[in-house]
Amino acid sequence: MQLTLHTDYSLRVLIYLAQKGEKQATISEVAEFYQISRNHLVKIVHHLAGEGFLKTARGKNGGMRLARAPGLISVGDVVRRMEPNFDIVECFNTTNQPCVVLPVCALKAVLSHASNEFLNILDRYTLSDAITQGEQTQQIFPVEFLRR
Amino acid sequence: MQLTLHTDYSLRVLIYLAQKGEKQATISEVAEFYQISRNHLVKIVHHLAGEGFLKTARGKNGGMRLARAPGLISVGDVVRRMEPNFDIVECFNTTNQPCVVLPVCALKAVLSHASNEFLNILDRYTLSDAITQGEQTQQIFPVEFLRR
Repeated sequence: MQLTLHTDYSLRVLIYLAQKGEKQATISEVAEFYQISRNHLVKIVHHLAGEGFLKTARGKNGGMRLARAPGLISVGDVVRRMEPNFDIVECFNTTNQPCVVLPVCALKAVLSHASNEFLNILDRYTLSDAITQGEQTQQIFPVEFLRR
Repeated sequence: MQLTLHTDYSLRVLIYLAQKGEKQATISEVAEFYQISRNHLVKIVHHLAGEGFLKTARGKNGGMRLARAPGLISVGDVVRRMEPNFDIVECFNTTNQPCVVLPVCALKAVLSHASNEFLNILDRYTLSDAITQGEQTQQIFPVEFLRR
């Protein structure tokens, strides 16, 4: 069971921006920091901006930053919006050929219950809960990064 | 977010056998019923038997049946044993190149909490909860199937 890399990387971008606070970041900077594909991040940042999680500015002094404080961005909200679907098993996708037992199968409701609970737990946390402060954080994030 | 087809099909096999009760079923019969690959099912049945969910008998009168009553088979147990991993995001797999922020990232614990809760919910249900009885069930499962 896993989330897509799209959601995984989305969370990483938001964590980076949460650490950066009011300062803007560029896609290249985030790509280099995490050592992940810049092209992949372009799509993710576009999606995150479309969902209202971050603000982007174009031009010479352009970049991106969180659209609101980390404490106001729910992890559950990010996962719900960035994950393409929650089709835990095949029969959740109604465009698939339906499973023959679907009309008399109660398993779908059981799996829906569990999946909803997964998201309900994530709703209890914000980006603030996902980041830490302290000496080790300063070692990992560049010095000039933390000077605001 | 989804479970693998391996787990999906495992649950379907168990649901079929739960409906069949004391009578044995063959892999070909289950494959035909669900219209899924027999080769794929061979591996799944082998795995299910290895995990103690079903008993198989070889020979002319061979076949498979549940190893215990449906009410004694927890959905959570099936998912835990059949799903290859619960690496919700990349950093859960310690053989991957670790994410640079891992030492100061609290997100992994947040996602673990949600993932554990997903499984805890499934632990509350058994195969008995996943199957139904009644007229519609008799329409879906073959007549000779229900005569025990």
